[in-house]
Amino acid sequence: MENSAVTTYPVISVISNRWSPRSFDPARLLDTDTIGSLFEAARWAPSASNEQPWRYLIGVNFNEEHRAILDCISESNGRWAQNAPLLIIAVGKTTRNDLPNRHFAHDVGLSLENLFLQAIGMGLHCHYMAGFSVDKVREALGVPEGFEPITAAAVGYKGSPDLLSDDLKEREQQGRQRKAFSDFVFSGNWEHPFPEL
Amino acid sequence: MENSAVTTYPVISVISNRWSPRSFDPARLLDTDTIGSLFEAARWAPSASNEQPWRYLIGVNFNEEHRAILDCISESNGRWAQNAPLLIIAVGKTTRNDLPNRHFAHDVGLSLENLFLQAIGMGLHCHYMAGFSVDKVREALGVPEGFEPITAAAVGYKGSPDLLSDDLKEREQQGRQRKAFSDFVFSGNWEHPFPEL
Repeated sequence: MENSAVTTYPVISVISNRWSPRSFDPARLLDTDTIGSLFEAARWAPSASNEQPWRYLIGVNFNEEHRAILDCISESNGRWAQNAPLLIIAVGKTTRNDLPNRHFAHDVGLSLENLFLQAIGMGLHCHYMAGFSVDKVREALGVPEGFEPITAAAVGYKGSPDLLSDDLKEREQQGRQRKAFSDFVFSGNWEHPFPEL
Repeated sequence: MENSAVTTYPVISVISNRWSPRSFDPARLLDTDTIGSLFEAARWAPSASNEQPWRYLIGVNFNEEHRAILDCISESNGRWAQNAPLLIIAVGKTTRNDLPNRHFAHDVGLSLENLFLQAIGMGLHCHYMAGFSVDKVREALGVPEGFEPITAAAVGYKGSPDLLSDDLKEREQQGRQRKAFSDFVFSGNWEHPFPEL
């Protein structure tokens, strides 16, 4: 598939086919079954003590809530994300049994990656955004104390890159890069890159 | 598959088939290609600004490093995790360009879920553990300043539950539970559960 990961070892197709396009097709809306499968996937992630600290604020098919979420996203992301029919703010519950839960953000990540790969499995694409206003989300979307907005994401069917402005079109065609195994997999001790990879 | 998620909406099989068994088969070791595919999957997760804040400390096939990691895991987890041929400590880099990276733990979660689903796709199972000693990991495994040990995980082929002690065998057979959609998916505002799910 276009822009698939170039891997040394094979991986399942939903992983190799996932990348972060900026071109979404605003004409292809999402039906309830599709949205249901995305959040069903998110729902079945593991979490510390099965706390399930993830919450999702969503705007669908350019409804009022979609506009409210778009308004919280940085301008540089918004100019392409506005065309994605599903906009998401992922929020984490910071405590468990009234004590800090050191895994809350990590567990939101486990859940959100399930959602992303489910999207790929259904022929959709997704793009994770760190750039949004946490304060605006808190105020405009009513996130209560004890919950932390963590990530934004856009989901939809891919559109033609020709609809993007020239600078975004160029970024769409950039190659994808990742660290070498020796930079992130260690044999027991931090000093020893895993020798066989 | 045994213990598959009971879902309202269909999800891809690697998600529905993932659960957290305690019975691993210590006789089935992992070869380099299998380990390579697991960390290739982890490698291709998205992250904020493509920082890739994840690092993995691993012990394989009951080598010395496997024992060192096992020694950091809580006793209640260790008594079953000791049979899994791959033990992992997932670590996050807390900064980006010398500033705090508020997404580091979340992004480790994105990466680790890729690894978990890749495991399922290859017929392996995995079990995420919050219970381990962060201090022991720091000291015994040499994690430097600026990095935070976040999660432990066990990966291997499933073994017979009959090898487990009676209390663990009983937990192995417990049903799996998740929150209702109305408890974690909201339409734009926190006050409004997404009406269609």
